[in-house]
Amino acid sequence: MRKYDNLVVNSIGKIVPSEVNGKPETPFQGVGKYIPEGRKYGAPISSCTNYPSDGNKLIDSLKESLIRAGLNDGMTISTHHHFRNGDLISNQLFDIAKELRVKDLIWFPSASFECNSYLIKYLEDGTIHHIEGSMNGPLGRFTSQGKMRGLGVLRSHGGRYQSVQDGEVHIDIAVIAAPTADFFGNANGVDGPAACGSLGFALADSQFADKVIVVTDHLVPFPCLPWQIQGNYVDFVVQSDKIGIPEKIISGTTEITKSPDRLFLADLTARFCEKAGIIKDGFSFQSGAGGISLAVSLYFKEIMIKKGIKARFARGGSNKHLVAMLEEGLIDYIIDGQTFDLDGVRSMRENPGHTWSSPFTSYNYHGKGNFAGLVDVVILGATEIDINFNANVVTHSDGYLLHGIGGWQNCLFSKTVILTVPLFRDRIPVIKENVTTICGPGELIDVIVTERGIAINPLRQDLIDLTLNSGLPIVPIQELKNLAEKICGKPNLPNFTNEPVAVVKWVDGTILDTIWQVNESTNFIP
Amino acid sequence: MRKYDNLVVNSIGKIVPSEVNGKPETPFQGVGKYIPEGRKYGAPISSCTNYPSDGNKLIDSLKESLIRAGLNDGMTISTHHHFRNGDLISNQLFDIAKELRVKDLIWFPSASFECNSYLIKYLEDGTIHHIEGSMNGPLGRFTSQGKMRGLGVLRSHGGRYQSVQDGEVHIDIAVIAAPTADFFGNANGVDGPAACGSLGFALADSQFADKVIVVTDHLVPFPCLPWQIQGNYVDFVVQSDKIGIPEKIISGTTEITKSPDRLFLADLTARFCEKAGIIKDGFSFQSGAGGISLAVSLYFKEIMIKKGIKARFARGGSNKHLVAMLEEGLIDYIIDGQTFDLDGVRSMRENPGHTWSSPFTSYNYHGKGNFAGLVDVVILGATEIDINFNANVVTHSDGYLLHGIGGWQNCLFSKTVILTVPLFRDRIPVIKENVTTICGPGELIDVIVTERGIAINPLRQDLIDLTLNSGLPIVPIQELKNLAEKICGKPNLPNFTNEPVAVVKWVDGTILDTIWQVNESTNFIP
Repeated sequence: MRKYDNLVVNSIGKIVPSEVNGKPETPFQGVGKYIPEGRKYGAPISSCTNYPSDGNKLIDSLKESLIRAGLNDGMTISTHHHFRNGDLISNQLFDIAKELRVKDLIWFPSASFECNSYLIKYLEDGTIHHIEGSMNGPLGRFTSQGKMRGLGVLRSHGGRYQSVQDGEVHIDIAVIAAPTADFFGNANGVDGPAACGSLGFALADSQFADKVIVVTDHLVPFPCLPWQIQGNYVDFVVQSDKIGIPEKIISGTTEITKSPDRLFLADLTARFCEKAGIIKDGFSFQSGAGGISLAVSLYFKEIMIKKGIKARFARGGSNKHLVAMLEEGLIDYIIDGQTFDLDGVRSMRENPGHTWSSPFTSYNYHGKGNFAGLVDVVILGATEIDINFNANVVTHSDGYLLHGIGGWQNCLFSKTVILTVPLFRDRIPVIKENVTTICGPGELIDVIVTERGIAINPLRQDLIDLTLNSGLPIVPIQELKNLAEKICGKPNLPNFTNEPVAVVKWVDGTILDTIWQVNESTNFIP
Repeated sequence: MRKYDNLVVNSIGKIVPSEVNGKPETPFQGVGKYIPEGRKYGAPISSCTNYPSDGNKLIDSLKESLIRAGLNDGMTISTHHHFRNGDLISNQLFDIAKELRVKDLIWFPSASFECNSYLIKYLEDGTIHHIEGSMNGPLGRFTSQGKMRGLGVLRSHGGRYQSVQDGEVHIDIAVIAAPTADFFGNANGVDGPAACGSLGFALADSQFADKVIVVTDHLVPFPCLPWQIQGNYVDFVVQSDKIGIPEKIISGTTEITKSPDRLFLADLTARFCEKAGIIKDGFSFQSGAGGISLAVSLYFKEIMIKKGIKARFARGGSNKHLVAMLEEGLIDYIIDGQTFDLDGVRSMRENPGHTWSSPFTSYNYHGKGNFAGLVDVVILGATEIDINFNANVVTHSDGYLLHGIGGWQNCLFSKTVILTVPLFRDRIPVIKENVTTICGPGELIDVIVTERGIAINPLRQDLIDLTLNSGLPIVPIQELKNLAEKICGKPNLPNFTNEPVAVVKWVDGTILDTIWQVNESTNFIP
């Protein structure tokens, strides 16, 4: 018996559920086509009468705070992922839920990491019903195997803010692990032993959750400044011995790649940007934390020094290389959603030009604009790209859900979007006829840079013209696909059952694609 | 014929309307007694689709932006008062409304100043229906004379945020004059020719208004940092030649009083705080911008230096004296809602320990606590105080409405509230049998300091005990009243008609008192 019968076809021809976890959903209607109606969600009105008159909201333990917050069956509990793989609180809170025999919780993290595969046992024993948020690695595989009771819901960082703001997701209890906080609940990520930089991913949670718990291992006297999280949204403050493992909070991906292939890719990307006239005085850019992206920044730096120009701003995730550019005067501002190393944390704490942002400012599509569209060029990756420039970042070619979306979808609104990818990985082509899952519609993706050539989206005739006699290896995307298949052979297609296990939302809350259960008995071995 | 028939008696025995400007209202029920239900107001959900993809929201003129914002009859239009008497935009926008023949607008400023008496002609010709916000000087007198069509609604700074957050006031169009802004609408008050420090009074307006217009005379390239107002809430940005008169933006009240009487009052207040054990290491205080309050800060400073202690924080309005204490290390932090002089502006721009706050963080009673309760001692003024410690800040003893509430009501939640007042002014007693208008319930007012003695509220036995053998002139409040009457004679009572002209709201949105039309034909001449 199928668990999901209500399937419809959306505007890009993908079959998606019209109902997810009991709630009706809107299928994707095209980029910019769905216009929301109605009003933002209004959290319950509080009264100071019900809070300590001296501002002291300290509670003895996380358990006690969860009880006082009314933890109960079926509630939605949110956490943030600023501690990445060093998170100690998310798992702990479900230990408490288990101890209290609470069932069927919905976990709504801003992302999950390897360390959270600890929670599989709670998905199995009924403590957690399902997860709405990125499911990297083992949690993703568990989901792809059809073992999670509810449907996973994958949202971009901006989409997560949008879903909470618009009332699509109602958070009963937000648990915000905070590297520094005061007894009133003001909190930040720039100080303390578990310093992680920003707390922006918890902003929506603080603003809209019914109950908000701040957990800290570094309590300071009021006022805790900066107050990235404002205590006026906070119900309880809990002191904990240790909220994160500092060495795991840092992503470990801020080393420049040493691979000649990847350095070549990065250099080619930078050269493309130079030839296309993107690297000019006052420009702006965003490149991620992976080895290739970091290398791109350094090639940008070389070009900027050569040209004697500087950038107006760079978007983080920040790292030591970006911070160096800020401190050397090559960038006026870093606008930063998350810091990827301790130099990033230090800089956010010290440099007025290094400012923390949030999914609200940067990515929320249901705001009056957001920062994404102001960025001149963004360099991203992908697991797969098809010949119509549609791209995938969540599943692999064997069908397994193994990654979250992060800010990837949101960044597609940048003025120029470049996906820098190898033509194939482990002899599996990256450029394909069709992608397993569409996370980004091709119309928003401008350039694909591979080691075998650069494909420009035909929609960007301006870029085609600008690079016409540049000496760069510009090729049709079809050629890249053919070349990949020539080297690797025609790729196998994953074998799915007809059961959805998760959905991919677009930035406007509509459903862009479905992730299907992998039929492990018949699937190919990658 | 009475205009207002729906009158009820509230919990402190005051007659108040049960309906104001067509909306039902809740009479005051006692401090902390009214518990709100329901949810915060949700502004309409926007979509990036409807905003410029490159973030450029510049519009040619304020007029054009008002037209595009849909300016229409009966709308509520909000402005902030950070420019004080140097505001050039509030008046200008109603000139435009007049030109466009729009009628019956409700003006919802965070406060009005002398310069806004320009708008009386628009109250008379029907462009403006009524004002909800403080009405100082001529606008207040106009109201007291019964000449405004609607009822004035006086709210504290916190009450204004509360009313917007709770949806009691729905702002159709917010016009935010911003000393610095970028084309996306990010804005601050710390830079530019009209620098005023914070823009916190416009926070609610930006968050909850249907349409938000930022007007600036100092446009900077994106990103405008700090973004005290976030562009993600902003619809249009307008460039204007001049938005404020810098020399009038500064309040002019930051000179220490030279009056021996007032210096004596300030010294007595500081000595009381010392004897009562309030001035101790790590304490916090707030004193206003008037001459006495400033002098209190300086006497505090002397005591702190003598004792070798420092304050954890001081609340602004900031001024050069407070800034000096911060920079000399006597105060760790200034938490500041508005800067009263250019040193305050400079410090907010330069000192990480000088942070801007907002009515949301500091004063909103319908939050999960606010900062007011964390302040150890606050020194305020009053126009009248009665023998039950009830106090008035909006009307004079002749009945005329001449002042706004500001943050005064909100500050009453401080741990110790001291009103420092002369026993009489112009031979009119300040301490009286009854006050003309109750703005603050006596139970929240702890100490009255006058030049003839200090009265302690019997509810504060702790303060009575602490100052028992202090040598300070502690007297029953009744004695102060008797002394005032002995000197000035029994005060005349104002002569009112039975028509309400305005209401005073409590911090929770309930109606605390009514301001009545002055019967000018029979009223005494003060």
